[in-house]
Amino acid sequence: MSQPISFSLASELETCAWFNTAEALSLYKLRGKVIVISAFQMLCPSCVSHSLPQANTLQALHPRSQLQIIGLHTVFEHHHVMTVDALQVFIHEYKLKFAIAADQPSSNNDIPVTMRKLELKGTPSIVLIDKQGRIRLNHFGHLHDLQLGSLVGRLLTE
Amino acid sequence: MSQPISFSLASELETCAWFNTAEALSLYKLRGKVIVISAFQMLCPSCVSHSLPQANTLQALHPRSQLQIIGLHTVFEHHHVMTVDALQVFIHEYKLKFAIAADQPSSNNDIPVTMRKLELKGTPSIVLIDKQGRIRLNHFGHLHDLQLGSLVGRLLTE
Amino acid sequence: MSQPISFSLASELETCAWFNTAEALSLYKLRGKVIVISAFQMLCPSCVSHSLPQANTLQALHPRSQLQIIGLHTVFEHHHVMTVDALQVFIHEYKLKFAIAADQPSSNNDIPVTMRKLELKGTPSIVLIDKQGRIRLNHFGHLHDLQLGSLVGRLLTE
Amino acid sequence: MSQPISFSLASELETCAWFNTAEALSLYKLRGKVIVISAFQMLCPSCVSHSLPQANTLQALHPRSQLQIIGLHTVFEHHHVMTVDALQVFIHEYKLKFAIAADQPSSNNDIPVTMRKLELKGTPSIVLIDKQGRIRLNHFGHLHDLQLGSLVGRLLTE
Repeated sequence: MSQPISFSLASELETCAWFNTAEALSLYKLRGKVIVISAFQMLCPSCVSHSLPQANTLQALHPRSQLQIIGLHTVFEHHHVMTVDALQVFIHEYKLKFAIAADQPSSNNDIPVTMRKLELKGTPSIVLIDKQGRIRLNHFGHLHDLQLGSLVGRLLTE
Repeated sequence: MSQPISFSLASELETCAWFNTAEALSLYKLRGKVIVISAFQMLCPSCVSHSLPQANTLQALHPRSQLQIIGLHTVFEHHHVMTVDALQVFIHEYKLKFAIAADQPSSNNDIPVTMRKLELKGTPSIVLIDKQGRIRLNHFGHLHDLQLGSLVGRLLTE
Repeated sequence: MSQPISFSLASELETCAWFNTAEALSLYKLRGKVIVISAFQMLCPSCVSHSLPQANTLQALHPRSQLQIIGLHTVFEHHHVMTVDALQVFIHEYKLKFAIAADQPSSNNDIPVTMRKLELKGTPSIVLIDKQGRIRLNHFGHLHDLQLGSLVGRLLTE
Repeated sequence: MSQPISFSLASELETCAWFNTAEALSLYKLRGKVIVISAFQMLCPSCVSHSLPQANTLQALHPRSQLQIIGLHTVFEHHHVMTVDALQVFIHEYKLKFAIAADQPSSNNDIPVTMRKLELKGTPSIVLIDKQGRIRLNHFGHLHDLQLGSLVGRLLTE
């Protein structure tokens, strides 16, 4: 792992919209699966070119019964154009197939609620949650596919 | 050239906003320079990953006294989210440095005015205009860098 | 895993030269570590552009105390030019840093000894060996970084 | 052009083998065409990943009646393994389709004859020769596809 492992339990996501899933996902209900949260903004170039294709492929390579990818649209700037409506079109045009949630906007702050609770530093960010619901990695920036794959593989076998 | 050469004069652009230029550009006033119009939509993945970086590099490699790149945001779908405000943020976040115009929306049609006049089939599209203001290529889809470079080089020497 | 898992024990490598290691490696002595064998030929384009950079990065991301990558130069064609001397220059020019062995040529066959014993179908091929020395994957062709990473991560945690 | 234009006439190539052409090419006989010389070594990683695919595509995009690409294998190091036999296999395995010559080895020098006459600094190098046989660019290192395309396009129209 690329930083000291924190074993704190991930608190529940607070979101205002979901895509590519029949119902809102709950981290609690996902216990027993490995969860990868890929935090992004649709107007973040590194997210678009690297992190989202990575998340899409990672899910395609693993059954949802074992691994759940959650894209989290954490809008902390340019809120007037990165709306849920725009996100919906973005997901459609980029053919993203994994579950994606829009982070809950804060009432008094540019940083949305879940982003603040997870203490994310920006986008892209990757959060790995093990089968017991514990946060095992909280990484700001991109991870090489081999590195992310290896970390996920280890959590899958625990 | 990849299709029959049309020597029709390019009619003037009709636009509603400009970026990265002190004033609105006029094809007529640009006579004497080679012009490359790169038509795109900000939520068109192939435009984002291929055509816009290509346009950005093409301008960086050639002085504006000889070659003028014009990005043309031709919104023909999802008009409610691909607004001029969103375009402005997009240009900023993607660090695009070449002149970009927003095509004039039509009053009674999804296809914006200049896109219709140029008979573009979709995005991305590339239009090459020679020093005399004549349309020399009108291509739907991406062109390989070597192919676009070679076509531009030929027009520059005429 | 992308094919039926075989739990046969990997038999020892038969080689005629080693690079990037102080001494010849023995699969038996490596018990307790995960081993990735990346079989290649220096004049195999897919090996050069994909598999060898992948092997190089995979080793760089994991300590040799846990994971041992072994490049295996399995020359089964053009033997007169893919010599051990040429391999040595190739490793130097491509700045490969992981352990690499030259497969032992057969006396009566174009297929070298270890390639035949491992029943490899061509290059590139990837063989994964677990901490107990068992072959867990024998794959002809390239694997996506996310897929290889995930498989390796799982073996590391067993 | 990226350096002061030299209008010296290119002297004839001195070579010891040709591939992908029915007969040895002569710069003199090619007058009237634009010539691109792509100097490389088969164990030069940047040549393999960038320059040779570029040369291959550049020829594929232009008829030989107008543009002649010549790959020039200028071996100045590791002569014992970058032989003409090895080059032949390399061309076959990498599916290179443009004309390629092996530079004539020097009798008393590591630098082969044509490389020395052209004063090339290393590999990859690109030399552009206009329709009158004059050297218009002599560049050490890689050129962006858009830049090389534009330079070639200009020479084609002269």
